[in-house]
Amino acid sequence: MPTEKKQLIVNLFEMACVSHITHGLWVLEGNNRHRTAELDYWLELAQVSEDAGFDAIFLADVIGAYDDFRDGPETALREGLQIPNLDPLSVIPAMAAVSRNVGFGATYSTSYEPPFAFARRAATLDHLTNGRFGWNIVTSYLSNAARNFGLAEQIEHDTRYRIADEYLEVLYKLWEGSWDDDAVLNDREHGVYSDPDKVRYINHHGEHFQVAGPHLVAPSRQRTPVLFQATGSAAGIEFAGRHAEVVFTGGRTAADYRANSGKILAAAAQEGRGTQAIKCIVQAGVIVGRTEEEAQRKWDLYRSRTSVDGIMAHGGFAIDPTAYSPDTTVHEILAREGKLDSPLASSTPPGTTAEALLDQLRAGRQERYFVVGTPKVVCDEIERWLDADGVDGINLRQYHSFGTARDFGELVVPELRRRGRIPQGYTAGETLRERIFGAGNSRLPQTHRAARYRLGANLGSLQPSG
Amino acid sequence: MPTEKKQLIVNLFEMACVSHITHGLWVLEGNNRHRTAELDYWLELAQVSEDAGFDAIFLADVIGAYDDFRDGPETALREGLQIPNLDPLSVIPAMAAVSRNVGFGATYSTSYEPPFAFARRAATLDHLTNGRFGWNIVTSYLSNAARNFGLAEQIEHDTRYRIADEYLEVLYKLWEGSWDDDAVLNDREHGVYSDPDKVRYINHHGEHFQVAGPHLVAPSRQRTPVLFQATGSAAGIEFAGRHAEVVFTGGRTAADYRANSGKILAAAAQEGRGTQAIKCIVQAGVIVGRTEEEAQRKWDLYRSRTSVDGIMAHGGFAIDPTAYSPDTTVHEILAREGKLDSPLASSTPPGTTAEALLDQLRAGRQERYFVVGTPKVVCDEIERWLDADGVDGINLRQYHSFGTARDFGELVVPELRRRGRIPQGYTAGETLRERIFGAGNSRLPQTHRAARYRLGANLGSLQPSG
Repeated sequence: MPTEKKQLIVNLFEMACVSHITHGLWVLEGNNRHRTAELDYWLELAQVSEDAGFDAIFLADVIGAYDDFRDGPETALREGLQIPNLDPLSVIPAMAAVSRNVGFGATYSTSYEPPFAFARRAATLDHLTNGRFGWNIVTSYLSNAARNFGLAEQIEHDTRYRIADEYLEVLYKLWEGSWDDDAVLNDREHGVYSDPDKVRYINHHGEHFQVAGPHLVAPSRQRTPVLFQATGSAAGIEFAGRHAEVVFTGGRTAADYRANSGKILAAAAQEGRGTQAIKCIVQAGVIVGRTEEEAQRKWDLYRSRTSVDGIMAHGGFAIDPTAYSPDTTVHEILAREGKLDSPLASSTPPGTTAEALLDQLRAGRQERYFVVGTPKVVCDEIERWLDADGVDGINLRQYHSFGTARDFGELVVPELRRRGRIPQGYTAGETLRERIFGAGNSRLPQTHRAARYRLGANLGSLQPSG
Repeated sequence: MPTEKKQLIVNLFEMACVSHITHGLWVLEGNNRHRTAELDYWLELAQVSEDAGFDAIFLADVIGAYDDFRDGPETALREGLQIPNLDPLSVIPAMAAVSRNVGFGATYSTSYEPPFAFARRAATLDHLTNGRFGWNIVTSYLSNAARNFGLAEQIEHDTRYRIADEYLEVLYKLWEGSWDDDAVLNDREHGVYSDPDKVRYINHHGEHFQVAGPHLVAPSRQRTPVLFQATGSAAGIEFAGRHAEVVFTGGRTAADYRANSGKILAAAAQEGRGTQAIKCIVQAGVIVGRTEEEAQRKWDLYRSRTSVDGIMAHGGFAIDPTAYSPDTTVHEILAREGKLDSPLASSTPPGTTAEALLDQLRAGRQERYFVVGTPKVVCDEIERWLDADGVDGINLRQYHSFGTARDFGELVVPELRRRGRIPQGYTAGETLRERIFGAGNSRLPQTHRAARYRLGANLGSLQPSG
């Protein structure tokens, strides 16, 4: 018997905005990104994604404008760079209405909104999607986001993670501890909907949050949505070890990737979750054509239309190299503007001119998880990511909506299926967590810290907290 | 030419829970209320509502459990009384995906969650519904809700309205002032999505909120959703005069109703909004049958299955009359439990026994906006509400889902159409505000206080607030 080949998780990377991460390309012929505020965009996306067989549609988010570059939001606005940007949680029920299998991941921040309301919203989404919902935990990083939520400046990075830790404990108590599995009786004969002995207050009294409960929503199929996280920082990795089930990481080389994913898996092992608790996923660029030339033509087109302004605004560049003569060096500009402490100073080799920097941005940086070619070339490369690096899955970057998704579905998916790297099709009725961790795994495992609250264990007093 | 007859607005009254306001009836044969956590319930409801020709589906909400009666949430849990209760905002995109005309109103509280996030969510819903979204402004009243959001007890009633006033100003600045109508250029040729000169920070610095902006969502068809409010208190009526476009009020008699609606319209006039600015709507019970007997049989069934426990828990009764012998008087019980200061003491005539009180609850109180009968009887009565009382519309109470909505659609709507009291059908593409206030009225009128922020007038400095 052959050993089973390592399987690939494939998510479509999305955001409810015009320009997410491929800046400037929204203008391409047939690109639908200008329609992301329309319902029909999302209905069509769900259909395309389900036709392609994607595991999930993964929605990024920010809750503020990119207004550091050129000291204002003007560039972001011109580029459609993540503004306008609709609420990602709201597009999921629309997509759920016209699909049965594809999963949904949405980004939501723990820094600014109360956990009780989010617990309810997420549980509602898990019900409406019939267990297809995942949550990408973020703590938010834009300074404008802080100012939108009443703060003069951002909460310090590690403090954000400490708040997030308590936020998650509140959610676990609500999702896992407040209602037992058999609390809903639905007993029409006796007119009893729920058994009150199996529902309880959580009475959370913490440093940052005070939450009484009970949770307003009865257990959904997954209870806790699949927990995604993107991280690289030490505090973030520690946090991932405690909470995350799928982590977005990356690396410019296989060794980079293995170092990053190794730290994450070690953090989970440290928490007693074993060495298989977390799947590591990378953002990938896949440009496929029926011929090598067709693929290359697409990539040339994308490169030629890439907006460097969009990249710089997204990156929060401390300086504007376009405002200087092309042969000025980046370090000269930084010095002149008193910004030698910016990350750009250390990431740019001395002597790099403004023009060279702009050319590099236009060309795209060297990436490990990027491939241009025929289905064979693409699938050979993806198999290297799986087998040589140990990658568990990809978040597919969209250069063209819905072109990228359709290309992947029509040209790459059949070949990956032939090679036994992805399932032959959906398993009807499985939850998102089952899709990722196997049949029977709709709930978080007993080794996850959320499990400690099950059946009401480790909660506060059962009396009202008021 | 005949003068045009007064038109009736018809909303279906809903809530994402098992037992909303007709307690005990969820167990009736064919009732689907136990399915309110399932996606298909909402898809079917949208279809039924659009078939019936309803103006909108109006979703009530609470963000806590009814746990005053019998000192705990046990009765509410047994009855399915508004717990479990899903997030109403989340079911709207699902319904929008399978409908084109029916409007949606959702209840959302101004007391516990930040305005920036709600501004974005509501604007997203107005986009996804193509201008069919309304918001029922509430300040929340359950003590458990306060404890779910970090407070030891409720914010005092009038303070809640002062916070709500500022909350609304923040929303108006975001919805009406942050983006001009022509800010979105969608200029593919030059790669310019928005014109930054037409988008601005709001820089709100108030007593309760600090919000920088810009709004994350470009103008939707209505910008500000249709503003609904339910109120009776003096502070609430003053608030309605400033903000509301549709107010839920009521009355046990025509005179009551006219007094209530008169105060509301006067409050709007006082604010310079004229005498036509607000539509007044009542909750109505309509039980219709093909024959008088059929209608009566339904009503007898509903009455016989009504849960008095559900009514008492919903009402937050200070005492439990079922715990005493039937001939004890309510006042004796209140005295014995030291609760003579409860509202029940003043609303119950002295000498009323526990048994009599329970019988009254079972029978239902005398209501002006309630009718049982054939389509002719029902429509005669509705015409009295319109012409004698001056009612603008109804929120139709559901005794049976989807029986009540189907009955109304099949038996009452055709007769109301024949009588010229409701339109012959939907006007394709109209917004909810146009449906209520007439063609061309998708936006709030210039007389509404939100209009003062248009084109960026009356905002703070245009610099970042941080």
